[in-house]
Amino acid sequence: MEILKIITISDLVTILNLTFGLLAIYFNEPNFIYIAVIFDALDGYVARKTKTVTEFGKELDSLSDIVSFGVATSYFLAKVSIFIAIIYCIAGSLRLARFNIVNSKDFIGLPIPAGSLFIIASLQLFKNPHIIIFLSLLVSYLMVSDIKFKKVRDLRVGLLVFISIILAILNHPEPIFIIILLYIGYSLYRRE
Amino acid sequence: MEILKIITISDLVTILNLTFGLLAIYFNEPNFIYIAVIFDALDGYVARKTKTVTEFGKELDSLSDIVSFGVATSYFLAKVSIFIAIIYCIAGSLRLARFNIVNSKDFIGLPIPAGSLFIIASLQLFKNPHIIIFLSLLVSYLMVSDIKFKKVRDLRVGLLVFISIILAILNHPEPIFIIILLYIGYSLYRRE
Repeated sequence: MEILKIITISDLVTILNLTFGLLAIYFNEPNFIYIAVIFDALDGYVARKTKTVTEFGKELDSLSDIVSFGVATSYFLAKVSIFIAIIYCIAGSLRLARFNIVNSKDFIGLPIPAGSLFIIASLQLFKNPHIIIFLSLLVSYLMVSDIKFKKVRDLRVGLLVFISIILAILNHPEPIFIIILLYIGYSLYRRE
Repeated sequence: MEILKIITISDLVTILNLTFGLLAIYFNEPNFIYIAVIFDALDGYVARKTKTVTEFGKELDSLSDIVSFGVATSYFLAKVSIFIAIIYCIAGSLRLARFNIVNSKDFIGLPIPAGSLFIIASLQLFKNPHIIIFLSLLVSYLMVSDIKFKKVRDLRVGLLVFISIILAILNHPEPIFIIILLYIGYSLYRRE
């Protein structure tokens, strides 16, 4: 069982991300995706702090991301449109596959956890399916695009996002929706 | 949209694997996983024939595999036991993460498509949840183990597996169950 020797603390946090993604599907509960995002942010932080950034950890992270922010998120989107849900998940997997082979200071394309947050919050906010379909196609395009998105590692921003996610779980998704919208807007503005 | 320039024909086949994995969940239809396995076998074949084995394609393949043979398969397992479904999907993701960082003549650990076929066939064959739980734990262990499994690229074996999968879709899962059992038995025997 050589595999057990290469697992680090941060990999265990990654596995919690994956687990909450699965629970979201099994229990039909989108709030579990918000919890998965928190563990996803945490695993990168733990890996850097404990200096255990490994190739294995990176692969496991992508696989967990496609589960929670790809499949589980698309599962809720499929209730609005199966076609759009498939488009979104394909775009997310292309984004993650490229991420693993490109080294870059910035993210290339909207990171899938941000895309997932935006969609889950939209599903809470808007009852009109046309708005959901439009926003999902926008997110799908941004993920596979070449637009640069800044890597934010500021702890104050992290805290703000964390509080917004807690609010979203408590049925107030407006703050997290606006934060992601500002992140997208800023990245598009910076591009010019 | 640089991403569109790196997508090959075999990547499109990989995306069909992913799509059928998603459809299995959305429509609650395990037979779509059998179709996903066929596309998964096909994409490797197409990539080798068209000489388009790329790093991007390998990453996309893993991501599609965790969707169809990890999440979608665990979705049906969760109807028997949520705990076992999570164990199985974690084991599958560890197996895929290791696969991407190790270069080896043989597979190290049972490949997840074989594990998935075994579990989906078992769910068709056995009504006793204890048998399903036992077989799922066995598959999970074999995936993360260091046991070597031969890469089979014989076209006759491929045809046999293909026919067995079609029979399983037609509600005769016995042949594919026996083939995977023989594959596991042979790999364990060869080890000694």
